[in-house]
Amino acid sequence: MKEYLKHDEWSVIEEGFDPNNHEASESIFSIGNGKMGQRANFEEKYSGPSLQGSYVAGVYYPDKTRVGWWKNGYPEYFAKVLNSPNWIGIDVTIDGIELDLSQCEVANFVRTLNMQEGYLEREFNATLAGNKQIHVKAKRFVSMADTENGAIRYEVTPKNFSGAISFTPYIDGDIENEDSNYDEKFWNVLDVDAAQGSAYLECQTKKSDFRCGFAIKYHLLLDGKQVQAKPEVIQLAKWAGNKVETEVKEGQTATIEKFAGVVSSLNYADGELKSNAEELASYAAHKGFDQLFADHKKQWAEKWVHSDVKIKGDVAAQQAIRFNIFHLNQTYTGEDERLNVGPKGFTGEKYGGTTYWDTEAYCIPFFLMTSPKEVTRQLLVYRYKHLQKAIENAQKLGFTDGAALYPMVTANGEECHNEWEITFEEIHRNGAIAYAIHNYIRHTGDKKYLEEYGIEVLVGISRFWSQRITFSEARQKYVMLGVTGPNEYENNINNNWYTNKMATWCLKYTKEALEHVKASNPARYDELVSKLSFKAEETTRWVDIVDKMHFPYNEELQVFMQQDGFMDKEQVMADDLDPAQRPINQHWSWDRILRSNFIKQADTLQGMYVLEEEFSKEEIERNFNFYEPRTVHESSLSPCVHSILATKIGRVEKAYEMYLRTSRLDLDDYNAEVHEGLHITSMAGTWMSIVEGFGGKRAYNEKLYLSPDIPKEWDEYAFRITFKGNDLEVRVTTQEVEILSHAKETIELYVYDELVTVEANQSKTISR
Amino acid sequence: MKEYLKHDEWSVIEEGFDPNNHEASESIFSIGNGKMGQRANFEEKYSGPSLQGSYVAGVYYPDKTRVGWWKNGYPEYFAKVLNSPNWIGIDVTIDGIELDLSQCEVANFVRTLNMQEGYLEREFNATLAGNKQIHVKAKRFVSMADTENGAIRYEVTPKNFSGAISFTPYIDGDIENEDSNYDEKFWNVLDVDAAQGSAYLECQTKKSDFRCGFAIKYHLLLDGKQVQAKPEVIQLAKWAGNKVETEVKEGQTATIEKFAGVVSSLNYADGELKSNAEELASYAAHKGFDQLFADHKKQWAEKWVHSDVKIKGDVAAQQAIRFNIFHLNQTYTGEDERLNVGPKGFTGEKYGGTTYWDTEAYCIPFFLMTSPKEVTRQLLVYRYKHLQKAIENAQKLGFTDGAALYPMVTANGEECHNEWEITFEEIHRNGAIAYAIHNYIRHTGDKKYLEEYGIEVLVGISRFWSQRITFSEARQKYVMLGVTGPNEYENNINNNWYTNKMATWCLKYTKEALEHVKASNPARYDELVSKLSFKAEETTRWVDIVDKMHFPYNEELQVFMQQDGFMDKEQVMADDLDPAQRPINQHWSWDRILRSNFIKQADTLQGMYVLEEEFSKEEIERNFNFYEPRTVHESSLSPCVHSILATKIGRVEKAYEMYLRTSRLDLDDYNAEVHEGLHITSMAGTWMSIVEGFGGKRAYNEKLYLSPDIPKEWDEYAFRITFKGNDLEVRVTTQEVEILSHAKETIELYVYDELVTVEANQSKTISR
Repeated sequence: MKEYLKHDEWSVIEEGFDPNNHEASESIFSIGNGKMGQRANFEEKYSGPSLQGSYVAGVYYPDKTRVGWWKNGYPEYFAKVLNSPNWIGIDVTIDGIELDLSQCEVANFVRTLNMQEGYLEREFNATLAGNKQIHVKAKRFVSMADTENGAIRYEVTPKNFSGAISFTPYIDGDIENEDSNYDEKFWNVLDVDAAQGSAYLECQTKKSDFRCGFAIKYHLLLDGKQVQAKPEVIQLAKWAGNKVETEVKEGQTATIEKFAGVVSSLNYADGELKSNAEELASYAAHKGFDQLFADHKKQWAEKWVHSDVKIKGDVAAQQAIRFNIFHLNQTYTGEDERLNVGPKGFTGEKYGGTTYWDTEAYCIPFFLMTSPKEVTRQLLVYRYKHLQKAIENAQKLGFTDGAALYPMVTANGEECHNEWEITFEEIHRNGAIAYAIHNYIRHTGDKKYLEEYGIEVLVGISRFWSQRITFSEARQKYVMLGVTGPNEYENNINNNWYTNKMATWCLKYTKEALEHVKASNPARYDELVSKLSFKAEETTRWVDIVDKMHFPYNEELQVFMQQDGFMDKEQVMADDLDPAQRPINQHWSWDRILRSNFIKQADTLQGMYVLEEEFSKEEIERNFNFYEPRTVHESSLSPCVHSILATKIGRVEKAYEMYLRTSRLDLDDYNAEVHEGLHITSMAGTWMSIVEGFGGKRAYNEKLYLSPDIPKEWDEYAFRITFKGNDLEVRVTTQEVEILSHAKETIELYVYDELVTVEANQSKTISR
Repeated sequence: MKEYLKHDEWSVIEEGFDPNNHEASESIFSIGNGKMGQRANFEEKYSGPSLQGSYVAGVYYPDKTRVGWWKNGYPEYFAKVLNSPNWIGIDVTIDGIELDLSQCEVANFVRTLNMQEGYLEREFNATLAGNKQIHVKAKRFVSMADTENGAIRYEVTPKNFSGAISFTPYIDGDIENEDSNYDEKFWNVLDVDAAQGSAYLECQTKKSDFRCGFAIKYHLLLDGKQVQAKPEVIQLAKWAGNKVETEVKEGQTATIEKFAGVVSSLNYADGELKSNAEELASYAAHKGFDQLFADHKKQWAEKWVHSDVKIKGDVAAQQAIRFNIFHLNQTYTGEDERLNVGPKGFTGEKYGGTTYWDTEAYCIPFFLMTSPKEVTRQLLVYRYKHLQKAIENAQKLGFTDGAALYPMVTANGEECHNEWEITFEEIHRNGAIAYAIHNYIRHTGDKKYLEEYGIEVLVGISRFWSQRITFSEARQKYVMLGVTGPNEYENNINNNWYTNKMATWCLKYTKEALEHVKASNPARYDELVSKLSFKAEETTRWVDIVDKMHFPYNEELQVFMQQDGFMDKEQVMADDLDPAQRPINQHWSWDRILRSNFIKQADTLQGMYVLEEEFSKEEIERNFNFYEPRTVHESSLSPCVHSILATKIGRVEKAYEMYLRTSRLDLDDYNAEVHEGLHITSMAGTWMSIVEGFGGKRAYNEKLYLSPDIPKEWDEYAFRITFKGNDLEVRVTTQEVEILSHAKETIELYVYDELVTVEANQSKTISR
């Protein structure tokens, strides 16, 4: 754990430069706009340890998997999040001396991530050879308004001398992924073109043939006034740039403003990348840094209106929740149905793939309540468009007749993970993907989506469960063998309660959905029957499975069993572990972990969270009290679910403990791994811990429920949610709950299970 | 399946050259002498498909493992069987035209593996450009007498012309492993030294720093008379050789005899490789091809006296069993305690590592009965010497206090496999390693071995079981969770009956062994107590485990259950599988295989085979009838155990079917994979099928039992066995069993459970 960042309500601030924190900061201070982004790498040369990372959404590389012995059904490739050409680079020399923070004395270093306005800023004084002192200030953003533009303003002020300052703005295409399986480079450079005042670089991924074009323009200014300086045009095999130099007097400020246009073949024909990128760079340069920034800031302001959570009395918590929301909004904006919420967003390479079940299980609840419904709908359509690939994925594993198994990790619908031990059998993902459809509809009321798209996905998934579940003659029950549940510290287990539960839920829901479509839109139903070769008899087996599914249960303890045979394990509590042995995944062998009763992340409890309405509070309590003490929370996705359930059963202190663990996970680098990138998808869990946890927000039968609680550490907190198109602000203090409606019509909701009516643009206060 | 080889009692013969069979033949016709060996690659250049393979025993390369996500306890490297410099090469030109069987017309091609005398021979006519016809004959062996020598006699006779024939004998160090994980080359070449009439090449493995030296000498002869020809000396960066040319008249024969000396740093100091290799090559050249061969042949004759199995009335079966025995004897000779029986011997690279549990479970029964006891003892000492590594291996997995877990795959005692899915949890290997000690003692009576070495291994293994087995409060029984049994179509299962059985057997046997040592050699016992920090109380838990171990059992069927929950699987018989889907490991996804009830190789039945005396014939029959129909025999180790048990329960026809499957597995390339190398260790299973299966050989309480049966396809069969130092020949016909003793004293044994006494050098016949 590292606590080097200053607490602040709206900013993340690093004061003083410690190279040992730099790679962590590169992750934490990352910026993005849903379409591109990059780590907080320095613009100028830095020869110390750094993970260079610049990313363009939707562009991936199918790296050959690394398995000991490939077997049928294993993915052939592992889609790597691609480190792309670096367009932020500006080398700087002072009287011929290269500026490099690892080679000079640095003072008054401040790095700021302004989350309110969405920019990264850095200021410092540097003393170079010959005691030349300069002040540097650099500000950077990737625009939320002009999403194919990024801009940098880089200022250098000599403090105690006059001299020549040069800037070399460039694009570098000679980059690599640190996590390349076979140390290959993934890019070919197709075009390098430097001219006076501009540069262009186009590259192409090997195998997958994605193309990206990067154009830059720049202005050189002295004390804010543009100056002309004849640049040196430099063009290398994989690098393009200009070097401009100007004489600067002591106290004057030399500034370079660099503007980038970044395009990819997702959005442009191959032959048109260059002209578009160059046009975009020119457009930005013409618009100018300040106007570009003003437009960008406006977009952020709009986002914050709908997604902000305010906490009074706890700056660390306030900063943390905004940090989580900020990064979620940077990662996914819902504008492109081909994109999704990568586990590391634009902050690192690790994990690979862009889409995990995290999207449906964690991110959708966030976007559903903080964004227009179209944003979530895009995430659903993403899966709809991958249905055929999911059917092919199931076929590779031996399933037939339209059974669909969605991938655990994917970039394009194909399964593309790299490790059998965990990923292969985590078929529970299919459940989360089906459930997200239900979740979307109950929050938006958009039943049309079910008819038009959702139903096809549901049928594919239910067909999968129907084939994957087999009948045990010995038990006279249906069973599901050889799965891995959300708890990845088990592998190839039988009858994972969560998976069995989600599977039967899917079968029930799909049957109801079919009946709904048949009743509400018979023509569409007929079309579906024909398109999917659907036979009404299929549901006969579904019903039978629902009736006769085996759910492991311990009569004595009255708790559901995570899987068959769970009680054969030695029952040890996480608190009784030697702290020196934790996290166990860094200290124990894999087979010891598998044999232990320790749980990585919510598993049975995940099911109780998702299907909470099926269980009494006492049942939840019994299961929570059984499982939580056995849980080591070694997944970033774990504490949030526990936090929500803990509030539910009245254990707000426990909930707060869990909340802290999730909300500052990256800021305080709990697991000493933040240098690899941030845990983007689990950030949604932090938001859930507040809104669904402390706020007690639920949506049953298309009605909204709140039953807020408040941790004793807080004076007040407030959040804003969208439910069926209506906007509400909820403010909770130790004394009361205020509902402020931004809706156009009167809305009804339940607070502490009491019906509350709020007029349009009015507020109502309920005592606690 | 391929059936291109001619049936012959003592030879394997390939007539006609079909390049499509060449790589399979390269495996099948491999030669070796326990110290080195190579595939049947052509001496002259061959540009068609070929797997170059030349191996030096005990030399391996620690290739970085290829896993998706390395976890604690995973091996860091995968020890590759190293393809070593090629010393057999002799390029040939005829009037400047290079001889290359893929570039010319080939007629009357005959390749012969003479198993009686242990050599490889090849004859053919080739027609080269300009209609130049030559006859070629090449004979090669690696000496069983002079084990660091190999020799080749290569003869060329122009049939219809006179011309210049050149030979280029060479050593090539620029070789690679086809199975390199990261396409690296594993060797550095340290010394290349070609002189007139000789060449030397020395190389070193990267990382592991093994060194090998290869020296060659040669004679050039014309019509059998040595001729002097000034050679061209050629030396490249990784290649050394001579080119000699001579004028040959039509009908004359030009011959080159090439002699090699091959040494490694296992046996010589680094600085002494060259002098020794050169001395060895000179020694061989001086001794001459014929004398070298005569000495070699004599050794083979001796081997055959003790290990031959004769079958009358079934040439295919006769050839097959000799083929299996031949390769076993080529692979391991018992002279060096650092060597073991590699799964592919000197015939290919695949699998890696040199030692699997195959050695104890399959090979030791063969060597025990066909070789002096010292041969098996070396295999036991091999494990004894690795005890410390086994303790470290267990420590890596979290075990303490001297618990020893032997590796599943190793080259030097360290675990070195490459795939988690199968190997990691196959801890049953520890059982086979312990059992081998018992097996050795009951066949040799060498109890001293137990005292001196075996007991330490047994204690280490029992300590492992004692920690690995845990107590289930729920069952009030001991359980063993998260293992993989011999049936590798299951993974991470609970309470594998076989593993539980072997573990409790170990605990019992170790306790008895300790008591025996304490009684027979108290001083040694005290020494052990101190050396091992052994506490008498340790056995208290062992006894408790033996008393309260959980063994899955199905009351209704009265059969042992392979593991917990086995009957939850859909019960399908292998015969009901669509033949197009077999082998399932080539057609089904891995997770489908895992979920199915199909068994790769004997698992529960493996336990009943090993501990047969604990079970009634009816029990064996019930379990056989339950498991065999669910078994797909997709391991080469599977049919033999089933064959033995089938004979035991009177199903000789089934036994014969299984025998056929195992004995001609490689000769007829059942699984279309023989081009990768032979299944050396399963060859011992073939021998077991005859001697323990049809012959009914058993050893209980240090007494020998026979109860021979005979397949209806055979007229007669005979085998020779060594029991407690006494040599017996057993001949079985449809009518009688003849025991011919070569012992020096009267021996007693049981034939069909009747005591039979045979005088020294006498025979006795028993009616069937």
